[in-house]
Amino acid sequence: ADFIIEHEKDFKSAAIISDISGVKTKIAEKLSCLSRKDIAIVLGHPMAGSEKEGFDHANESIFLGRNYIFIEDVAYAEANPELHKKATEQLKELALAIGFSRTIETNAKVHDHKIAFTSQLCHVIASALVQSAEDTEITAFGGGSYEDLTRIAMINAPLWTELFLSNNTELVKHIEIFEKYLDNLKNLISEKNKESLEKNLHEVRKKRIAMNGKK
Amino acid sequence: ADFIIEHEKDFKSAAIISDISGVKTKIAEKLSCLSRKDIAIVLGHPMAGSEKEGFDHANESIFLGRNYIFIEDVAYAEANPELHKKATEQLKELALAIGFSRTIETNAKVHDHKIAFTSQLCHVIASALVQSAEDTEITAFGGGSYEDLTRIAMINAPLWTELFLSNNTELVKHIEIFEKYLDNLKNLISEKNKESLEKNLHEVRKKRIAMNGKK
Repeated sequence: ADFIIEHEKDFKSAAIISDISGVKTKIAEKLSCLSRKDIAIVLGHPMAGSEKEGFDHANESIFLGRNYIFIEDVAYAEANPELHKKATEQLKELALAIGFSRTIETNAKVHDHKIAFTSQLCHVIASALVQSAEDTEITAFGGGSYEDLTRIAMINAPLWTELFLSNNTELVKHIEIFEKYLDNLKNLISEKNKESLEKNLHEVRKKRIAMNGKK
Repeated sequence: ADFIIEHEKDFKSAAIISDISGVKTKIAEKLSCLSRKDIAIVLGHPMAGSEKEGFDHANESIFLGRNYIFIEDVAYAEANPELHKKATEQLKELALAIGFSRTIETNAKVHDHKIAFTSQLCHVIASALVQSAEDTEITAFGGGSYEDLTRIAMINAPLWTELFLSNNTELVKHIEIFEKYLDNLKNLISEKNKESLEKNLHEVRKKRIAMNGKK
């Protein structure tokens, strides 16, 4: 955002500027000070990634079947709605062309709220689950579940520290909701409350299967 | 176990009896009342499975690269060590022949402690994470992490209720350790303690990568 603000006057007319950062409220706020109305700023978040770093791990199938989110509420959209709409359409086409299966438009606040759940919360959980392991020999007793849940814990520490901290209010709320449900399941298990536990797991299964149909 | 006890006298001499249940301490204890010394009971746990149920989802590659755990401490091993050893060897060969990549021998107590972590804890976390979702539309904002962490929540409710409850002491201990680490990360995020958070995530990454080398 600082770069765009600094170079505001250097962009060509009708230029389309986008980003791929994982937290949007702050960048959208910063950019609201821009004054040019003849350039389009469309923030975007490609929901794709890998725990592997660097060019050596480039993978042409990384975008396949993934979602690309575009943000519709930067000041620039209001300043020049027609240009903004055209730019968004072009970026959507580009996203689909490189393999994404679906594009979503939402605002920065909803984005940061939802992403704190689907992405950041999952990375925090995976990290805590790795910390909980007695030793690194534990995978000898694994059947795939532990490995699947903790793969994303091979985390880029500086990047994720920044993502967690710049969205910390939303993220902490989600962690607390998760802790409440986890604690409830723990209590049912501890009290051997078979009936409620089974009822809970039935509902979990139904809810998770419903998500599959929404891709 | 009840079936074996009831039919103890009906088994052929030198018969090998095994099981595939997910919790071992209780079954090992029950079987300690058997008196025949000429049959081999070797409890086993194939660490493979799928969230899909029924014969329609049979999959010939389900065992590939997985671990098969054998239990070495049932009373019968002591009663006739030679027969028990021979039977274990035969079952190990069978496990490798059908695709498992590794066999492990351990005792029932260690098995139940480790499995409570790698398998049951992961299923509880996945279930709580599904319960935490605001709605089933959330996957529109997913990049794969949430889907990966919650796939195992398409859980067979009666089976997992039984597994959770029959190993509840070990499982509750692991949930509490996990909650402690999760709460610690939450506090670092909440307090914006960048330095400690980044240090934690660095260690998580190192630890998780070390696990990859142990498969």
